[in-house]
Amino acid sequence: MPTYKAPLDDMRFVLNDVLCVSSLAQIPAFAGVDDATTAQFLTEVAKLAEDVLFPLNASGDREGCLHHRDTRSVTTPKGFKEAYRQFCEAGLPGFACDPDYGGLGMPAVLNTALSEMFCSANMAFGMYPGLSHGAYNALHEYGTAEQKQKYLPKLVSGEWTGTMCLTEPQCGTDLGLIKTKAVPQADGSYKITGTKIFISAGDHDLAENIIHLVLARIDAPDTPAGIRGISLFVVPKFTDGARNDVYCGRIEEKMGIHANSTCEMNFEAAQGWLVGEAHKGMRAMFVMMNEARLGVGLQGLGISEVAYQNAVTYAQDRKQGQPIDQKAGSAPDDAAAVAIINHPDVRRELLTIRAQTEGARMLAYWTALQLDLSQKSPDAAAKKKAKALLDFLTPIVKAHMTDNAVDHANAAMQVFGGHGYIREHGIEQYARDARITRIYEGTNGIQALDLIGRKVLKENLLPGYLDALDDDLRAAKDAGVDGDMLSSVSRAAAILKRITRRLRFRVIRETIKAKIGLRGDPGAVLRDGAGVSVDYLRLASLVVIGHMWLKMAAVAAARLSDTAGESAETRHFYETKMQTAAFYMKRVMPQSAALAETLRDGAGVLMATPAERFAHTQTNIAEITRPITTGEKKAS
Amino acid sequence: MPTYKAPLDDMRFVLNDVLCVSSLAQIPAFAGVDDATTAQFLTEVAKLAEDVLFPLNASGDREGCLHHRDTRSVTTPKGFKEAYRQFCEAGLPGFACDPDYGGLGMPAVLNTALSEMFCSANMAFGMYPGLSHGAYNALHEYGTAEQKQKYLPKLVSGEWTGTMCLTEPQCGTDLGLIKTKAVPQADGSYKITGTKIFISAGDHDLAENIIHLVLARIDAPDTPAGIRGISLFVVPKFTDGARNDVYCGRIEEKMGIHANSTCEMNFEAAQGWLVGEAHKGMRAMFVMMNEARLGVGLQGLGISEVAYQNAVTYAQDRKQGQPIDQKAGSAPDDAAAVAIINHPDVRRELLTIRAQTEGARMLAYWTALQLDLSQKSPDAAAKKKAKALLDFLTPIVKAHMTDNAVDHANAAMQVFGGHGYIREHGIEQYARDARITRIYEGTNGIQALDLIGRKVLKENLLPGYLDALDDDLRAAKDAGVDGDMLSSVSRAAAILKRITRRLRFRVIRETIKAKIGLRGDPGAVLRDGAGVSVDYLRLASLVVIGHMWLKMAAVAAARLSDTAGESAETRHFYETKMQTAAFYMKRVMPQSAALAETLRDGAGVLMATPAERFAHTQTNIAEITRPITTGEKKAS
Repeated sequence: MPTYKAPLDDMRFVLNDVLCVSSLAQIPAFAGVDDATTAQFLTEVAKLAEDVLFPLNASGDREGCLHHRDTRSVTTPKGFKEAYRQFCEAGLPGFACDPDYGGLGMPAVLNTALSEMFCSANMAFGMYPGLSHGAYNALHEYGTAEQKQKYLPKLVSGEWTGTMCLTEPQCGTDLGLIKTKAVPQADGSYKITGTKIFISAGDHDLAENIIHLVLARIDAPDTPAGIRGISLFVVPKFTDGARNDVYCGRIEEKMGIHANSTCEMNFEAAQGWLVGEAHKGMRAMFVMMNEARLGVGLQGLGISEVAYQNAVTYAQDRKQGQPIDQKAGSAPDDAAAVAIINHPDVRRELLTIRAQTEGARMLAYWTALQLDLSQKSPDAAAKKKAKALLDFLTPIVKAHMTDNAVDHANAAMQVFGGHGYIREHGIEQYARDARITRIYEGTNGIQALDLIGRKVLKENLLPGYLDALDDDLRAAKDAGVDGDMLSSVSRAAAILKRITRRLRFRVIRETIKAKIGLRGDPGAVLRDGAGVSVDYLRLASLVVIGHMWLKMAAVAAARLSDTAGESAETRHFYETKMQTAAFYMKRVMPQSAALAETLRDGAGVLMATPAERFAHTQTNIAEITRPITTGEKKAS
Repeated sequence: MPTYKAPLDDMRFVLNDVLCVSSLAQIPAFAGVDDATTAQFLTEVAKLAEDVLFPLNASGDREGCLHHRDTRSVTTPKGFKEAYRQFCEAGLPGFACDPDYGGLGMPAVLNTALSEMFCSANMAFGMYPGLSHGAYNALHEYGTAEQKQKYLPKLVSGEWTGTMCLTEPQCGTDLGLIKTKAVPQADGSYKITGTKIFISAGDHDLAENIIHLVLARIDAPDTPAGIRGISLFVVPKFTDGARNDVYCGRIEEKMGIHANSTCEMNFEAAQGWLVGEAHKGMRAMFVMMNEARLGVGLQGLGISEVAYQNAVTYAQDRKQGQPIDQKAGSAPDDAAAVAIINHPDVRRELLTIRAQTEGARMLAYWTALQLDLSQKSPDAAAKKKAKALLDFLTPIVKAHMTDNAVDHANAAMQVFGGHGYIREHGIEQYARDARITRIYEGTNGIQALDLIGRKVLKENLLPGYLDALDDDLRAAKDAGVDGDMLSSVSRAAAILKRITRRLRFRVIRETIKAKIGLRGDPGAVLRDGAGVSVDYLRLASLVVIGHMWLKMAAVAAARLSDTAGESAETRHFYETKMQTAAFYMKRVMPQSAALAETLRDGAGVLMATPAERFAHTQTNIAEITRPITTGEKKAS
C-alpha cells in the first residue's frame, strides 16, 4: 500500500526561506501572516491530508461514485462525506476567501500548499472543493451584491459546492459552438436548457446544494453568433429549498479519478440568473478558468510528489542486484543484493522526478504569490507587474506540471517494476489519475497556444518575466551559486529570447505589410508559431524551472556558507537541495539544445501532408506483381 | 468505439520494396517465399486480426480473466477460446516453426508482421501464443530428442501453449535470488517446489495443456550459489494425461491487459524435467528471453499503430475551432469549425506517432530478418554478421518501441481530449495495456544496461552496426535522398561513435591500469556508463530509427523519380513517406543535441546524495523561529 507524508520541510523552505511570505504581512489584507503561522498551518493541513484524505484514496478509486437512475443523482465513495465534513469544520474551504463573506482572507500562496497536499493525498477528493473555488471566484468578481450575499457565504463555509458547466458533446475547446439556451423570463431570470458533459463534481452527496455556473446562449435575436454570444448563468441545484430542473443524467466511466463524479448534466428549463453582463460570459469564465488552470497544475505537483515518495520508499526497501562496479570486480554471485536505490539508473529516475517536482513546487508557490500581489498589493506598479507574471506563468504551471506528472507517475511505476503495474501497490492509480490533468481546463496543446499566441506574441509578456529572471540570476551570483548553473539557465533563456524576437518581428513585419497593401501574411506567422507552440512552452518551462532552482540554490548556498549552530538535518536539507539543483542543470536543462533546433522550424513540415492521407491504406497491397527495381537488391 | 485496419500497404512496402524478402527464397529453408505469397499472407492474417481478434479487445478488457478458487484455474473472456481455435485452424501457431515438428518453416520476418497485427488488434490475446513461442524456442534449442518429440508438435499445432516461469516475489531482475527448488528423483525427473509470480498465460482455458518452462535451483550440495546455480525445467500442467501439481493460486488485478491471465503459479512438488544442462538455465532462459524481447517491442509497435489510426479518424471527424491563420484575419466568429486535423499542433501530435511508428515497423522487420539470416543463411559470414546486428538491435527494439508506445497511446488520447479519458472511446485502454511493455521481459532500464554494458562495451557490436548504416547512407545518397536528411542521421551517429569510443577507451585504460598494479578502476567507468545508459539507448534509438527512415526514403525517392504509369494512390504513398521522413528528421532527430550534452555526464551527479536522504523530511518545520537573514528580503 502506498504512503504519504507531506514534504513539510520543503514547503517551509519555499514559503519562508525563499519567498519570505511573512513579508506579506506588510500588506494590510495579510496582516498577521508570519513564519510560525505558516508552519502551524502546514502542519495542521498535513495532518488532515495524511490521516483523513489519504486513506480514502485507494478505496475511493476502487469503489468509485454511484449514479442513481431513479433520482438522477450521485453518491460518493465511503468516507468522503465525513472527510468533507472535517475539511469544512476546520474552516478550510474559506481559508483564502473574502472575510466579508466569512472567509479567513489568507494568502493564496498558503492555500496553494493546502491544495498540493490535498492533491497528493487524494486528488479525486480535492476536486470537489477545488471547483467550488472557481464558482466562488466568478461570483465574487461578477455577481451582483444580492448574488454575492446569497451564494458566497455558503460556498465559503463549504455547505454548498460549485461547478463549472462549459463542455457540451459537440464542443470542448471551441466554446463558440455552445448550444445550451437561456430563455429570458418575465421575472428577470432565465430558463436554461441543454446538455453539459464532463462536469466534475456535477452531482454528489457531500454538500446540501450545488451551485452550477453555466455557459449558455441567450435566446434572443440580438445574441451575437459564436463566442461573442455566450453568457454566464448561476443555476443552483436547489433554489430557496426547491429542487431546480438540473439533473445528472449519467456519470462517465473513466481511466481514473473514479472517486470524483464526472457528470452529464441535463438542464431541463432549469431556473438560472445571469452573472455579469449578457454576452460577456467568456470574460467571467476566464476568471474561473485561470485559477482552475493553476489548480490543475497543483494536481500535477501533488501526484508527482506522492509518486516520488513511494518510489523512494520502494527503492530503499527492494533488494535486487549487486552494484555494477562490484560486478566488474570479483564479487561472488551470491553477494547480498543491494537496495535498488544504489543503482545509478534508479537514482536517475528518482532524481528526475525530484528535481522537476521541487522546481514545480517553487514555481507553483511563486506564481500563487503573484496572484496575491496582483490582487492585494497596495502598490499599483507592483500589482501590475505581478499580474503580468501571473498571466505569463499560468499556462506553464498548467501544462508543464501536468505533462511532468504523467511522466513522473510512470517513472515511479518503473521503479516498482512489475509490482508497479498491479493494483496492490497503488502506484498505477497515480498514472491513471494524473492522466486527466493534461486534458482538462484546456488541453496542454491549448496552453501552449495561449502562451505563444496570447501571452507572448499579443501581450508581449516575455520581457517582464526575463527581468525577474535577471534579478534572480544576479542574486544567485551574489549568493555564490556556481557559474555553470547560472549559465545553464541564462543560455536557455537567451535561446527563448532570440526565438521570440524573431517571431514577433515577423508578426510585426507581416502586419505592416498587410496594412500598407503589400502582400503581408500575419496568419502564416501565427501558423508557424502554432506549429512549434508545444516546443516553445517546453523551452519556456525549462527556463522557468531552471530559474526556480536558482532561487532555491541562492538561499541554500547562503545557508551552507554559514552552518555554525545548524543541526545535521538542516545541513543535509541544504546539501540535498544543491545536489538536486546540480542534477537539474546537468541532466534536465540540456533539453534546451534540442528545442533550440526544433524551434527553428515552423508549420511547413506539418502542413505538407493532405489531411486525408494521414490514414493508412490497404490499396497498394493488391499491386504486388510489379518487380522491385530499386532499393536493396537482396535481403541484408 | 475504436477501429483497426492493418496498415497493409506499409507492411508490403517494408517487406517487399525495402527488405526484398522474396530474395530469402535463395535460402533453401525459405524456398517459395515471394512477393505474392507475402501479400496474400498479410491479407489473410489481417482478416483474422480485424474481424476476429479486434472485436474482442474492448470486451476482453472489461470482462477480464476469471480465477476459480475451487479448481485453482483460470478462464478467459468470452470469445477468446473460439478465436484461439480459429488461429490454430489457420495453421498460424506454427507458421515460423520447424517443419520437422509440423511447422510451416516460414521466415520470422513474416511472422513479425503477424505479431504486429495481433498486438494492434488484441494485445492481451496475442500474449497467449506469444509465450508459447518462447517455450517452443527453448525446447527446440535445448530439449532432448525425446522432449522435442513430446512437446514441440503440440506447441506447433497450438493444442498446447507454453509459459516462462522466472519471477518470484523476492526477485525479478536479479534471477540469482531464485528460491524455487528442484529435488532430483530416482527416475531422473525432479520435484519442483516454489512460487512464481507475474506468469503471463500461466493458466487459461484456451488449450488442453500448458507447458511451463521454469527456472529453479537443483537441491544438491554441488549447486553453485546465485545465478550460476539456476537450471531450466519443463513442467507440464498435465503429464501424460495426469494433472501435475502446479496450480494458479491467484491472478493479479492490473492496470491493463485484463484479458491476459497474470498468474501466481504454485509448484507443489510438481514433476519436471531438466532442459539442457544442470546449472546452465540462464543460457536457455536467454533463448526464450531474447525473442520475447523482440515480441514485446512488437507489442509496442502494435499499440502505436492502432492508437495512431484512431487518433487520425477522430481528428478527421471532430470539428473544433477555426484555422489559426484565419482567426488572425477577419473570419467571423461563427465561421464553420474545421476538423481538428487542420490544426498544426494536432498534426504535430499525429506525425510524431506516425514517424516513429513507421520507423519502428521498419526496424522490427529488419531485425527479424537478421534473426532469419542468423539462423538459416548458408553463408557463415552473413550468419555471423546478422547475429551481431540482431544482438545489438534487440534492446533497442524492446525499449525504444515500448517507451514510444506509451507515449503514443497518450498522444493519441490527447488528440481525443476529454473523450480520450473515458472508457467509451477505447483509447485509454491502449495507454493502460501499453504500460506493461516498458516493464516485462527486462525493464527498459535493464535493456539500456544490456546495450551499453554487454552489447557495446563488452561485445563491441557498435562498429558492425555503423557499417550497415554507412552502406545505407551511401545507398540513400545514390537514390537522391536529400543531403539534410543524410547529415541529420550521420551527425547523430558521429556523436554516438564519439561517446562510445571515449567510454571504451576508459574501460581499457582502467583495466590495464588495474592489471599492471596501478590504481585502475574499471568499475567506475561501468558505473558512469550505467549513469547515462538510458540516454545512450535513446541516442542509439534515434540513430537507428533515422537509419530506418533513410532505408525507406531511398526506395521512396527512387520510386518517385519515375512515376510514369503509377496510380495516384501509389504516388501518394511514396509522397507521404517522404513527408513523414522529413518530419522525423526535422522534429525528432534534434533530440540528439540534448543527448549529446547529457551523455557527457557520468554517475557522479547521481551518486552524490546519500540513499537515506532521498526521502522528504518533516524535521526542520519545527525550526521556524530562526530569522531569515539571506535569500529574498521581501515577497516578490
